[in-house]
Amino acid sequence: MALIIQKYGGTSLGDAGKIKKVAHRIRDTYLDGNNVVVVVSAMGGDTDRLLDLARDITDQPDEREQDVLVATGEQVSISLLAMALKSLGINAISFLAQQVMIQTDNAFGKARILKIDSDKILKALKERMVPVIAGFQGIDEMGNITTLGRGGSDTSAVAIAAALKADICEIYTDVEGVFTTDPNVCSEARKLDKISYDEMLEMASLGAKVLQIRSVQFAKKYQVPILVRSSFQDTKGTLVTMEDKDMESVIVSGITYDKDEAKITVTKVPDRPGIASKLFTPISEANIVVDMIIQNVGTDGLTDLTFTVSEADFEKALELVRDTAREIDAQEVLADPNIAKVSIVGMGMRSHSGIASTMFTVLAREGINIAMISTSEIKISCVIESKYTELAVRILHDAFGLGENKEA
Amino acid sequence: MALIIQKYGGTSLGDAGKIKKVAHRIRDTYLDGNNVVVVVSAMGGDTDRLLDLARDITDQPDEREQDVLVATGEQVSISLLAMALKSLGINAISFLAQQVMIQTDNAFGKARILKIDSDKILKALKERMVPVIAGFQGIDEMGNITTLGRGGSDTSAVAIAAALKADICEIYTDVEGVFTTDPNVCSEARKLDKISYDEMLEMASLGAKVLQIRSVQFAKKYQVPILVRSSFQDTKGTLVTMEDKDMESVIVSGITYDKDEAKITVTKVPDRPGIASKLFTPISEANIVVDMIIQNVGTDGLTDLTFTVSEADFEKALELVRDTAREIDAQEVLADPNIAKVSIVGMGMRSHSGIASTMFTVLAREGINIAMISTSEIKISCVIESKYTELAVRILHDAFGLGENKEA
Repeated sequence: MALIIQKYGGTSLGDAGKIKKVAHRIRDTYLDGNNVVVVVSAMGGDTDRLLDLARDITDQPDEREQDVLVATGEQVSISLLAMALKSLGINAISFLAQQVMIQTDNAFGKARILKIDSDKILKALKERMVPVIAGFQGIDEMGNITTLGRGGSDTSAVAIAAALKADICEIYTDVEGVFTTDPNVCSEARKLDKISYDEMLEMASLGAKVLQIRSVQFAKKYQVPILVRSSFQDTKGTLVTMEDKDMESVIVSGITYDKDEAKITVTKVPDRPGIASKLFTPISEANIVVDMIIQNVGTDGLTDLTFTVSEADFEKALELVRDTAREIDAQEVLADPNIAKVSIVGMGMRSHSGIASTMFTVLAREGINIAMISTSEIKISCVIESKYTELAVRILHDAFGLGENKEA
Repeated sequence: MALIIQKYGGTSLGDAGKIKKVAHRIRDTYLDGNNVVVVVSAMGGDTDRLLDLARDITDQPDEREQDVLVATGEQVSISLLAMALKSLGINAISFLAQQVMIQTDNAFGKARILKIDSDKILKALKERMVPVIAGFQGIDEMGNITTLGRGGSDTSAVAIAAALKADICEIYTDVEGVFTTDPNVCSEARKLDKISYDEMLEMASLGAKVLQIRSVQFAKKYQVPILVRSSFQDTKGTLVTMEDKDMESVIVSGITYDKDEAKITVTKVPDRPGIASKLFTPISEANIVVDMIIQNVGTDGLTDLTFTVSEADFEKALELVRDTAREIDAQEVLADPNIAKVSIVGMGMRSHSGIASTMFTVLAREGINIAMISTSEIKISCVIESKYTELAVRILHDAFGLGENKEA
């Protein structure tokens, strides 16, 4: 008998029919003799409907009140799912965040979980009940309702799994698991059986949006194994877990890409202390996140500095940089929104040499020019012209043998 | 400076535009220097939408979970109204029932308020904030969400007014106040400036559905003055309050009617102890509420027994009574669904004689036959043929001079 956390997202709970299907799956797991704790998101589309209501009232909804508003989405789904389970003869009980004391800080709309009181949940489990808990929400010290931000239910589920020392946290979603790359771009893409927390973090932050990044960080910290799987199919899914010997033998686990990037270069910047700070302070003050930053070694006391931002922030960043460039007497500001970042991710890189040069060679062979390079311990990213993105993904996927050993 | 409770119902909060209008009204009251506490229902139609969701899941939704579900309706309206107030520069703050400890018993769907902790509300008022509190809901001893039943927000508002010792509890609705009778039936119907709790109780239970009965009982017990008024017009409304000298001089305050009644007569019932119990026990066990019961003095040891039930329960009640009639050897069971109850209500009846005979004379003059009569201290009800209802209301309204002294 295992203790299993099952988290169901909005698409899995889109309507009454889907909620009943989810109830059947939970019942099956429960009748196999397991203890089951369920964590749910709002029904698909409900959070957007609620945000629209707020926007009809005011352009700038109060953050505390907006959390009170959107938290109703999960409240609706826990009650409906508990009803569905009860009608199947399963003794389910819904819990709101405040009822099981999911305590967070008071950063409305992006709160962080501080503590979970597992007593009430454990008591329900002891009576062979199935607790159905509202994800995405919490309460702060003052008893105010908070929410964790988009995708926060994943983090709720992992945090509850950690608090209860669950055997596994199953995340049910509309994809079958984590793939070696985007199947829409590369038909050879293969579902991974297993991936390490660190690889998953690089994959997720690079655009393979299966799990909320924070939930993976949480899972890594508390060593909670996560199984990502489809709620519509009965396939095995991908296990996100601690790195093991198996993983070391795989050099590259996946290829990711991000087209939502734009590049800004400032040429002939006087190469003296404080220049980078002068350039980036106004940008960070405008809440613009800078992704990659490259500075070449300068000659003649001058250097070129290139960085990338998201396309949404591009115009604003460009304006700010032009102002600073005049101030610091740089030569000119070059801008290019038509770029993409392609990355290879894998634990094996740490112990294998030549991975980077393979990547560069493969891209060069197809005439794809590399504008920027950035590396971490388990990832290499190249910025290329946007139009070559899909081609680059496919040839890298092939070069690192990710399409081989296809599963059924 | 007064402490004013303002309660807004679902029709007053039907959409964003109406919510903003309500916010303006609250702001005006607040800027006049008053302390204001707001209590709200769910947005019009929202509770029905939620109940439909439950019915899509199962025919018999679990009662605890249904309360979790429908309680989201008020949570949405408190957050939206608080947002609207904040955008007008008023320091509003929403509170759920559990946040201000509106404690109830655990009768899900029809819970009763036991206690309200006024500390948090008073603290907010001290800081010149406007608390916006979810009506209709509470929490039980175990921290479960409960609801008070349809119209329960009126009771929430009055209970909060009682707990805070408010100067007045204003109930905003889609009518201008309490009328001498239904304006749709009698064009001479006049809005009352004032009415006593007892009269209001008789009016409400007899069909003039302006306030939830329980809220009036609560108001009477704790002597909370209620002002019923329109949220769409700026008219004065009707004050529901303790009886005073003024009221005594008015003999009849209003005429009410109820067409949703049906009549069952059992003839030649053996007149011996235990017979009434035999007849009515199966009916009450089937959760059917019996309204009027008339038993004539018997002759020859036999008596006729007549009673009324709502039309919805008519068939079921008839079936049960036929079974019992056979058992107790009654002669026959007569049934008539085409009846209506017309009542006159007024504090003045207690000290004036001849009111009943005036009522009977007026009805007789128009050839309206009276099938049953029932009286209380401040009310006389007659059961007549349904088709005469409107005529009876109009001639009684006229006979007791209710149309006189019209207000602007």
